[in-house]
Amino acid sequence: MQIQNDLLLRAAKGEKVERTPVWLMRQAGRILPEYRAVRESVSGFIELAQTPELAAEVTIQPVDLLGVDAAIIFSDILVIPEAMGLPYEMVEKRGPWFPNTVSSASDLQKLRVADGANDLSYVIKAIEITKKELNGRVPLIGFAGAPWTIFAYMVEGSGSKTFSKARAMLYTEPKLSHLLLQMITDSTINYLKAQIQAGADLVQIFDSWAGILGPEQYEEFSLRYIRQICDAVNEVPKTVFAKGAFFAREAMRKLNCETIGLDWNMGISESRKMIGENKTLQGNLDPAALYGNPDQVRTATIQMMEQFKGSRHIANLGHGVYPDIDPDMVKVFIQTVKSFK
Amino acid sequence: MQIQNDLLLRAAKGEKVERTPVWLMRQAGRILPEYRAVRESVSGFIELAQTPELAAEVTIQPVDLLGVDAAIIFSDILVIPEAMGLPYEMVEKRGPWFPNTVSSASDLQKLRVADGANDLSYVIKAIEITKKELNGRVPLIGFAGAPWTIFAYMVEGSGSKTFSKARAMLYTEPKLSHLLLQMITDSTINYLKAQIQAGADLVQIFDSWAGILGPEQYEEFSLRYIRQICDAVNEVPKTVFAKGAFFAREAMRKLNCETIGLDWNMGISESRKMIGENKTLQGNLDPAALYGNPDQVRTATIQMMEQFKGSRHIANLGHGVYPDIDPDMVKVFIQTVKSFK
Repeated sequence: MQIQNDLLLRAAKGEKVERTPVWLMRQAGRILPEYRAVRESVSGFIELAQTPELAAEVTIQPVDLLGVDAAIIFSDILVIPEAMGLPYEMVEKRGPWFPNTVSSASDLQKLRVADGANDLSYVIKAIEITKKELNGRVPLIGFAGAPWTIFAYMVEGSGSKTFSKARAMLYTEPKLSHLLLQMITDSTINYLKAQIQAGADLVQIFDSWAGILGPEQYEEFSLRYIRQICDAVNEVPKTVFAKGAFFAREAMRKLNCETIGLDWNMGISESRKMIGENKTLQGNLDPAALYGNPDQVRTATIQMMEQFKGSRHIANLGHGVYPDIDPDMVKVFIQTVKSFK
Repeated sequence: MQIQNDLLLRAAKGEKVERTPVWLMRQAGRILPEYRAVRESVSGFIELAQTPELAAEVTIQPVDLLGVDAAIIFSDILVIPEAMGLPYEMVEKRGPWFPNTVSSASDLQKLRVADGANDLSYVIKAIEITKKELNGRVPLIGFAGAPWTIFAYMVEGSGSKTFSKARAMLYTEPKLSHLLLQMITDSTINYLKAQIQAGADLVQIFDSWAGILGPEQYEEFSLRYIRQICDAVNEVPKTVFAKGAFFAREAMRKLNCETIGLDWNMGISESRKMIGENKTLQGNLDPAALYGNPDQVRTATIQMMEQFKGSRHIANLGHGVYPDIDPDMVKVFIQTVKSFK
């Protein structure tokens, strides 16, 4: 099906665009009252993510209500461990929690490489419904966590300030770590291919915990696997967002993907120099800037846009939108990008 | 009093040293069973920090038990808000918590600029006792939080993954933010001068939450105040450790201080280029490397030492030692540095 507003896809590929496309990480869920209404009709986050009709509904909400240039499928990066045989729960206000974690070779033997289309059929179904209901208005973004970030949760068992268990394992059990990372990578490739097969027009890899590894470890235990994924998935444009991995920007220049996401710590002109002209950059307004009044949000957005001006750019925040942000300020951000010349 | 082992001070000033000095952030407290024994004799962390004889005792423990080249006074960066009129509690396993926070001009009026010697007499007393008991064996390090990090706690009221309230205030109330930051800065200058008067041989400024600000905001709301402190305190060598502020390394080249601390994300040769040859660098082994076995700890330490070789260096971790690290692995780290040639 022909996509009517394909700004995102053209910007990703470095083609000419009339204006910069804009969407927000975490735009589906979190901030909209309309999302909360759907969320309260089910038992929790996981049930919502596993009910394709509802996942599709909240995926489309920001397209209708905020006017973003892309939808991103409502799901979670931790569906991969679940599909590999390591289920998790979402504890209100505390985040994800795994009853079982991986700490030994025998734990690893209990896991399997996930087959995207079968093991994650509820996401695939949600993508199919979303595509149908979007009816070509805007592109649909699929996504997965980067293998290192998924590994971090599978070993640590929950979120953590330091992820010291996961990082310890890289030192104490490097071989086991690589085996697990490879299983996650293979599962992720299957999963992304199934998402694309179902209709995802672009895929993004989120390395949320990139910033807790040193440069050498990041190359060995994260970037290596992101590279595998980028090389294996070639059907649609790919975006890599590695939060905190400022030290990997030069290496990302050579990654087989179209777009690199920047967080708000990464200076724009410096990042452009490191990553080069042949990639689209995505980002990177400080999510806290949306706490301001309309004038302040406008000023901050324009300042960001000016710095990207004249180069390949997809406007976004430098991280997911914070849950307590006023949707009206999100609209000011989006409108400011759309009218920026 | 003449200090017998003054390696730290000479390395800080860029003088010739026979070998690289070594100490660990958070060496006092956390890892030693001998510390835990003292800790259990009182009601909690804050009582321990406020009892000068006990604070002195746990300050000296790592000198005796681990063989580090410096002691660092056992205290907390949050004594400054307390001395300014904003008390806090330390909640077991959750960290600091402030019953009252700062969100308006009227909150600010309830605060005062702290006078180090009077308002924080318990720290000053602990320094005096420590200096006496150390009897010149090694230098004693005094410290304070950077104004931005202190501000973040005073506005947020606790630790946080995003410190979104504190960051929101920089956008919504920039003038009020600067007023509070100036009060914290003035208090910190008084406090560090009192520490030095009492015997601190070197002072370190910890900007633990540097890494959550974008480059421009970091310059305006953090570095500006660190600069004021560095310019005002000239009696002893100064170290600035801004965790996560990779984007500020070039600016730090011009800071009026002797040493810059590096975290483990910051590449050593790249940081040296940005900061220049005229500063000592401190750090930066990944704290998680100490989860390894003795051989692994040795290898990781030597790898780090090789990269600093031939330039001004104080060996340390890239962040505070983690609470569950085996003290024997800390000893392997220290011994490896000491025997490195």
